[in-house]
Amino acid sequence: MKKQRFGPQPFLYPMPTVIVGALVNGKPNFNTIAYVGIAGSRPPMISISMDKGRFTHQGIAQTGTFSINIPSERMVGITDFIGIYSGRKKDKTALFSVFYGELKTAPMIEECPVNLECEVIETMDFGGKNSLFVGKIVESYAEKQYCTEGYPDIEKIRPFVFTRQDHNYWKVGEHLAEAFSVGRSYQGEE
Amino acid sequence: MKKQRFGPQPFLYPMPTVIVGALVNGKPNFNTIAYVGIAGSRPPMISISMDKGRFTHQGIAQTGTFSINIPSERMVGITDFIGIYSGRKKDKTALFSVFYGELKTAPMIEECPVNLECEVIETMDFGGKNSLFVGKIVESYAEKQYCTEGYPDIEKIRPFVFTRQDHNYWKVGEHLAEAFSVGRSYQGEE
Repeated sequence: MKKQRFGPQPFLYPMPTVIVGALVNGKPNFNTIAYVGIAGSRPPMISISMDKGRFTHQGIAQTGTFSINIPSERMVGITDFIGIYSGRKKDKTALFSVFYGELKTAPMIEECPVNLECEVIETMDFGGKNSLFVGKIVESYAEKQYCTEGYPDIEKIRPFVFTRQDHNYWKVGEHLAEAFSVGRSYQGEE
Repeated sequence: MKKQRFGPQPFLYPMPTVIVGALVNGKPNFNTIAYVGIAGSRPPMISISMDKGRFTHQGIAQTGTFSINIPSERMVGITDFIGIYSGRKKDKTALFSVFYGELKTAPMIEECPVNLECEVIETMDFGGKNSLFVGKIVESYAEKQYCTEGYPDIEKIRPFVFTRQDHNYWKVGEHLAEAFSVGRSYQGEE
């Protein structure tokens, strides 16, 4: 077999890059993560895995709510900054214009093209350094300037992705194919 | 506020595209999903959300194991095909060269540059049409031709991402910045 074994590794290629928001002791704090995925569609849910030692983790545990904010390419510097430095040492309150929605306790970032407001419905601890939070998405937000035909448009949002092993951010590239369509003409060749 | 509300929507931009493998009644079957995310690093875990009606879901429930296979751009046709048609109607056994690893019951796809072999450690049902499986990654695989300096290289893998609302696949684009680095020189401007 020509496949090489790497041991158990979180090799998901690529991973999205998102900024998680939470109120910690009443103040907005933010943390950048890539361990995130949609966890269901009815109701819409999202799962995030976060180090229990992170300041933002403390806020999610306190309030039972959090936000997901999708940064744009131009925000790569501040996005990385947030991931590097803890809110314990650097006050992240003033980094963004913050707004609140239904839940009142999930600080969202105006500057991010898309925002999800989430309520924790499950917290799991598998014995490692992270918790897995499953959040029910109670509301989603986007500015009109990032939308096409009424929905957020990836070409206007310009989100970016992350690779863990080599520590890099990558742009989203050009259109590849239409989903639920290109496969209809698949004839048995790659 | 200039933000528009969309109601609860699974607006994660972008989503990875992966092929999930499982044995259904002893035969390999595959399903394409984008509702996937790393769920922890110690141990490495991955979560997938899958429609309970899918044939592959049945196989995961039967065996308690599954695989994650990262398709390359050139495989977009077959990847979409797998997502459109059910294994109940189209036999997917012969679509790929299949190999097995530690678990013996998680069929993996040779043609995919990266494979994860997973054991279900948690199954959650939130009342909707999907289950959320959390899988412990017991082994990961990649071919040398897709690696650089000993690890899978996104520029060689050429994975692609998915947008749900408009049903499209997108390439991963050019390098944007180095993570845990570009943020160190962030000076307060976007």
